[in-house]
Amino acid sequence: MKPLKPINRLADSLAKLPSVGKKSAERMAYALLDKSDEEIKEFSDALLALKQEVRKCPKCGLLIDSDTCPICDDPSRDNKKILVVSYYKDALAIENSEGYNGLYHVLNGEISLNKGITVDNLNISSLIDRVSNGVEEVIVATNPTIDGETTALYISKLLNGHNVDITRLAYGLPMGGNLDYTDQLTLQKALEGRHKI
Amino acid sequence: MKPLKPINRLADSLAKLPSVGKKSAERMAYALLDKSDEEIKEFSDALLALKQEVRKCPKCGLLIDSDTCPICDDPSRDNKKILVVSYYKDALAIENSEGYNGLYHVLNGEISLNKGITVDNLNISSLIDRVSNGVEEVIVATNPTIDGETTALYISKLLNGHNVDITRLAYGLPMGGNLDYTDQLTLQKALEGRHKI
Repeated sequence: MKPLKPINRLADSLAKLPSVGKKSAERMAYALLDKSDEEIKEFSDALLALKQEVRKCPKCGLLIDSDTCPICDDPSRDNKKILVVSYYKDALAIENSEGYNGLYHVLNGEISLNKGITVDNLNISSLIDRVSNGVEEVIVATNPTIDGETTALYISKLLNGHNVDITRLAYGLPMGGNLDYTDQLTLQKALEGRHKI
Repeated sequence: MKPLKPINRLADSLAKLPSVGKKSAERMAYALLDKSDEEIKEFSDALLALKQEVRKCPKCGLLIDSDTCPICDDPSRDNKKILVVSYYKDALAIENSEGYNGLYHVLNGEISLNKGITVDNLNISSLIDRVSNGVEEVIVATNPTIDGETTALYISKLLNGHNVDITRLAYGLPMGGNLDYTDQLTLQKALEGRHKI
């Protein structure tokens, strides 16, 4: 018995999903065989609709599914602040924290020597245009990793000379965390950033 | 920022796949946003092709993607033996073992009180018709679990009175296994089934 071509074909697509290996992809394809025709149709339609309906806000780069950007086009947001994130999901996390009321700028990645991602692959150049229009503070919220730090450093140098405050999110102990389980670097950063109470 | 509808819609479909939770489904949907239009189209087409191209052999119930069944329509197979499995993948495993040259019969499940699966949900009745046609042995290869045993018992009672040998796969130590790590029940079965060397 040879393996079934339609199963293998679908498994090839499924195996491209994050954290899905060859074996799980095959198992998923077999499981899909037991779904109703309606469920398969809906899955297929949802796939096609995804890229047709989701696009990026031409200003800030956030993903949107309507004609207006819920952030850029909201007059109640403070348009003197821009918070720079590497990925859309990071902006979602910041929004969920309910601690920020300014605008966003999504880079769509981080400068990475390992992965061969350079400034040209990122949505950085449009940031300079945005900063020129009376923005007072750029908060660089890239990840606290080597790539994120490299990107933050690049942005701070790029905006140097523009009349704008460039800030970075604070490093320190995560709330609810345990000192005993906190890594060395985070502890060092928490000590460096200590403040009076 | 509200969650994006097209992302949620696709995530709902992805979350129906085996061992994919709500969070991973969402992560997969975001990852699919970065795929090319061609990859998305291929994924969608493969989904639709699956149920159109894969069907069951009307005789044995094996999944096939052509007009003929590679087992039933192969004259070199021994058509006096039928091996009964619960699922298609079990037949694949037996084929890969290269220890069997007869026909198959796929039940598409096992009798299960817990899951509410009864004889009526399984492909059992057509087995009687097949057995009437000069078959000499029915090998019941359902899983060595409670549901599998229940199903095996049902089949053996069903075929009682037909002029056919009903056999069950041997229980015992898995090859390459370690006696020390073998569970109690398997050891009991291995002792019961001991044979002269």
